[in-house]
Amino acid sequence: MGEKLCFASDYMEGAHPAIMQRLVATNLEQTAGYGQDAYSAAAREKIRAVCRAPEAEVFFLVGGTQTNATVIDALLRPWQGVVAAETGHISVHEAGAIEAGGHKVLALAQRDGKLSADAVQACSEGWRRDDNREHMVMPGMVYISQPTELGTLYSLRELEALSRVCRAAGMPLYMDGARLAYALACPENDVSLPDIARLCDAFYIGGTKCGALFGEAVVFPKPGTAPHFFTIVKQHGALLAKGRIAGLQFDTLFTDGLYDAIGRGAVEAANRVRAALDERGYDQPFRAPTNQVFVALDGERAAALSKDVELGFWENLPDGRVVMRIATSWATRPEAVDALIALL
Amino acid sequence: MGEKLCFASDYMEGAHPAIMQRLVATNLEQTAGYGQDAYSAAAREKIRAVCRAPEAEVFFLVGGTQTNATVIDALLRPWQGVVAAETGHISVHEAGAIEAGGHKVLALAQRDGKLSADAVQACSEGWRRDDNREHMVMPGMVYISQPTELGTLYSLRELEALSRVCRAAGMPLYMDGARLAYALACPENDVSLPDIARLCDAFYIGGTKCGALFGEAVVFPKPGTAPHFFTIVKQHGALLAKGRIAGLQFDTLFTDGLYDAIGRGAVEAANRVRAALDERGYDQPFRAPTNQVFVALDGERAAALSKDVELGFWENLPDGRVVMRIATSWATRPEAVDALIALL
Amino acid sequence: MGEKLCFASDYMEGAHPAIMQRLVATNLEQTAGYGQDAYSAAAREKIRAVCRAPEAEVFFLVGGTQTNATVIDALLRPWQGVVAAETGHISVHEAGAIEAGGHKVLALAQRDGKLSADAVQACSEGWRRDDNREHMVMPGMVYISQPTELGTLYSLRELEALSRVCRAAGMPLYMDGARLAYALACPENDVSLPDIARLCDAFYIGGTKCGALFGEAVVFPKPGTAPHFFTIVKQHGALLAKGRIAGLQFDTLFTDGLYDAIGRGAVEAANRVRAALDERGYDQPFRAPTNQVFVALDGERAAALSKDVELGFWENLPDGRVVMRIATSWATRPEAVDALIALL
Amino acid sequence: MGEKLCFASDYMEGAHPAIMQRLVATNLEQTAGYGQDAYSAAAREKIRAVCRAPEAEVFFLVGGTQTNATVIDALLRPWQGVVAAETGHISVHEAGAIEAGGHKVLALAQRDGKLSADAVQACSEGWRRDDNREHMVMPGMVYISQPTELGTLYSLRELEALSRVCRAAGMPLYMDGARLAYALACPENDVSLPDIARLCDAFYIGGTKCGALFGEAVVFPKPGTAPHFFTIVKQHGALLAKGRIAGLQFDTLFTDGLYDAIGRGAVEAANRVRAALDERGYDQPFRAPTNQVFVALDGERAAALSKDVELGFWENLPDGRVVMRIATSWATRPEAVDALIALL
Repeated sequence: MGEKLCFASDYMEGAHPAIMQRLVATNLEQTAGYGQDAYSAAAREKIRAVCRAPEAEVFFLVGGTQTNATVIDALLRPWQGVVAAETGHISVHEAGAIEAGGHKVLALAQRDGKLSADAVQACSEGWRRDDNREHMVMPGMVYISQPTELGTLYSLRELEALSRVCRAAGMPLYMDGARLAYALACPENDVSLPDIARLCDAFYIGGTKCGALFGEAVVFPKPGTAPHFFTIVKQHGALLAKGRIAGLQFDTLFTDGLYDAIGRGAVEAANRVRAALDERGYDQPFRAPTNQVFVALDGERAAALSKDVELGFWENLPDGRVVMRIATSWATRPEAVDALIALL
Repeated sequence: MGEKLCFASDYMEGAHPAIMQRLVATNLEQTAGYGQDAYSAAAREKIRAVCRAPEAEVFFLVGGTQTNATVIDALLRPWQGVVAAETGHISVHEAGAIEAGGHKVLALAQRDGKLSADAVQACSEGWRRDDNREHMVMPGMVYISQPTELGTLYSLRELEALSRVCRAAGMPLYMDGARLAYALACPENDVSLPDIARLCDAFYIGGTKCGALFGEAVVFPKPGTAPHFFTIVKQHGALLAKGRIAGLQFDTLFTDGLYDAIGRGAVEAANRVRAALDERGYDQPFRAPTNQVFVALDGERAAALSKDVELGFWENLPDGRVVMRIATSWATRPEAVDALIALL
Repeated sequence: MGEKLCFASDYMEGAHPAIMQRLVATNLEQTAGYGQDAYSAAAREKIRAVCRAPEAEVFFLVGGTQTNATVIDALLRPWQGVVAAETGHISVHEAGAIEAGGHKVLALAQRDGKLSADAVQACSEGWRRDDNREHMVMPGMVYISQPTELGTLYSLRELEALSRVCRAAGMPLYMDGARLAYALACPENDVSLPDIARLCDAFYIGGTKCGALFGEAVVFPKPGTAPHFFTIVKQHGALLAKGRIAGLQFDTLFTDGLYDAIGRGAVEAANRVRAALDERGYDQPFRAPTNQVFVALDGERAAALSKDVELGFWENLPDGRVVMRIATSWATRPEAVDALIALL
Repeated sequence: MGEKLCFASDYMEGAHPAIMQRLVATNLEQTAGYGQDAYSAAAREKIRAVCRAPEAEVFFLVGGTQTNATVIDALLRPWQGVVAAETGHISVHEAGAIEAGGHKVLALAQRDGKLSADAVQACSEGWRRDDNREHMVMPGMVYISQPTELGTLYSLRELEALSRVCRAAGMPLYMDGARLAYALACPENDVSLPDIARLCDAFYIGGTKCGALFGEAVVFPKPGTAPHFFTIVKQHGALLAKGRIAGLQFDTLFTDGLYDAIGRGAVEAANRVRAALDERGYDQPFRAPTNQVFVALDGERAAALSKDVELGFWENLPDGRVVMRIATSWATRPEAVDALIALL
């Protein structure tokens, strides 16, 4: 892809150099497989500490769709489905992986990519009060993403309300944190990892899009939440033989605040882009505070920009304009941001 | 695991240094995701060349159980099952992943871990001639592994016979090559990659156990064998966002004969161990020519050895002895073999 | 349920007396099982004749949810989902049976319970044009019901348009005819069984709600549409050992025009109710021409009526009124209709 | 099938006349659907009484494969499989219905069609002691049939031993009673319905092969064994709209000892055939005391017999002879038995 600037997505490079360095340094060590190694154990311990969840069960999987399918399959019973926003990744972009596991995605209307506690409450109550409920899929858990697919954030208050509704209804609350570093690092964010561990029944801390070669860390704050999860992971083809490769990456990400630093850098870069767009009068249709910036462009402007910089296509607007996504990451260099701003 | 010798399995180290070096060298390059990058394209081209299958479709997945479940799901229709040896990995050690995908494993008796063409023929004919066949699972494809789970090899003649039976019956023949490097490098082996590509309808070239951090290369020699395979991979949670990490590893393995060299080193090491065992009168219950050596030990001898070297437990024999597995790999150092032989 | 009038649903009685009489008359005959008997063969022949589809494959299953799950599973491949109206029976009231089979229901907005050809076209095109389509569920077939769950009808023109779109996109069109007798008998209806056989790739002629004890006749007008369907039926637990019990019922329904007569009687009864409601100024929120009548009542009126007649609850309206369903059937006696009208 | 004698199976006629008579007598009554009717309630009460299980949950399904798939799906978790004899119906003749539900059938060697408590114990212990158990399918429940597929019976002592092993291992014991009437009526049998209810966690009382048009009564002696079973039944397409048709049949079968009488008549007829075969020196390879008689015939004898009587093909023997099955039922007339004996 050579010389051209590229802001198309946040998974275009390899891993943060600190990770590569440790992979090389430990490469010839012999360790037990399947996550039974000391690096995975250390990573689990660090994640428990940073989440202030000393009893949490932690597992390292490979990718996001796989993680969602495995966790949801582990938490639902056959008569249940998973509630999600209609824009949720599991609703749209996972090739039917949840349904392939036998479960319906109960898609609810969203605002800014978010599910409201009221909507979840209404869904749960609607089922409970329906005389035909035993002929229908029972809402069995709730899926949210932080940040959402639109780059927006749940506030602590929103998350607390969701958690309250879920617990009252006996539905586990699961958070997809594919880009969690970029939420945690936002000045606007008021939801910490301990908050998530306190309010969710399961969540994953994303590695693939936040500095790792690959890998997602599933956390069940309360032990016993998902019995035989190891076997379910294996059955889903999600168990790494050389589990230490994932474990070591998370150990590195949670050493010396690297995960935070990765998030901060990307958000600062995105903020510089957002400010430049505002200054120049561009239209930002979703106001996302994280590492994704969305800008509406007319055809001419989009074509001109595309000569010098690769952006991500998001959607066509009814008025003929196109929404493009600018994604920053741990790997975004300041000079690339300068160059992008100069082009705008 | 420090000082102690360890021959417990062939996936205890990271990756061959040549792979680590290239991962580091290319780490900050930006590439398209999901296997649409130039490294993956190059790896596919090299695999097509070494298999003499210029039209082959090649996909890079992460691990063995995942690959088996994905390929088998792609090749079977709902009324079909997969024929396998009762010792086959999919029959025993994949946590029911094939059944979770909706398909029965039709386990047949084996000899030395192998399915015979006659047994497959009898299974297929048995179904065809049974008046109740429409109430039964139709044998829809055949799964074999090369080398087998016992470290043994199909000869070219055996593979040709299997392929003939499968094609006559319209059943795709699929080979699990988790340790394929260690088969290809055996002096006893007469089955080449072009033979496999000619005789099988699908197979995978193992990376995880043959020098990669992870990764398996699925090959469909004839295009169109598995329509929409990309989506099936995604649905199985087997699609890597940073696909180039897998592609680059296979590109490296198939550059300058590295895959062959890896196999040869491990087999030579295993042969040295086998010769030493023979010389000292040890009992080798399965005579495997590849990178796995099996030795029957009485309790005292096993306990004594285990102080200095970690071996893999295989099974208990009725006579009270225990079968242990000694596995070599690309990472086995000659001095470690010397030390092991000295202990015997 | 004794004395009280009851119009709650159309499956409250046993079977049409002509069916009971033949079940008794043939009761001690010995026949082959699993639908291989002469009565099932005769019924298949009569259905082929009335559909003017001489090559059609016909199967007798037990109930509607079972039939939908079995047919949809037979027609879809793993990467595909079924398009349906958001009010479709499979979307809402089948307890996730379609998802349990591994497939997503792609629910589209409806009007009067119907899918438009334009909406289906847009869905298919939307998938085809999306750069991420291989990460999404492919629309693989279309499900409609005639009459719909709201009692409304597709016109011939609407059905032709749907069929055209489906065939252009390579998506089988499947019609759920749970209450088909009540569609075919409507004066407003212009869609005949031969039209359905010409325009759909699969459909079922409902027995359970149209005069049988149970049973649905699946028709594939073009042979070979669903290979190994017998085995798929068995696998879904939908194969009757004494298949002749279903076959004989359909043989009876399609002898001497009984299926038509059943439909006509119910629709005439419903039309009398509709006319009486109109005359008395009741509000009918969905204007359905078939055997279901929907009436909006205020709380007081609903409570008063419920003392003397059992109706089916449909939904609560935002204005506080309740929509009740009045269902007639082959078993509705004219005197019961008189009594109902007198109560109104 | 007219004049020819027929002993091919026990599901060739309709229903016991007492059932037909009640279906006709109640045909025009209006009842609630889905098993909420008074006849189903009465049948449930009678089954609870005869099983001496006053708290049992009872459900009426349609056929055997469907019932097995539904119950097994309800009792297993995703990481578990069902233990069965290799001759078990679910292992062989259900078209992969259990695997289609995502579960492995763990087939064990059998003797006389039966699983021994020791074999089940060994299977459970084997899993528990295997270091790789988390990579394997956990034995999660045990499936047996009474009588077995070979017509043999578990003794009370055998059933008690199985139950003990299962409870110690936490595995529900499930009995398929497709032909239970013919077991209960055997002079050799010492296992009563209360024994079954005491020793099994789930079982079904077969109707289809024991006098009903169709129908199987699932019994969970202990309430709460299978939560949301109604919805699971619906999801499996196993819920009858006119549930009273099944309920009424079981109400009739358990009124005035009809189920016992049906069993006794068939077993007496089979015993007459067995005695005649013994007298004439025929070889009976499986000595089954129930309504199935197995006889080994040479080709000439089989061909001669087949002109006058239809038997069921069972299997070819290595010595060239063929095993045929003679099945009696509630519908077998004494004169037909006389005629068969005369032919022998």
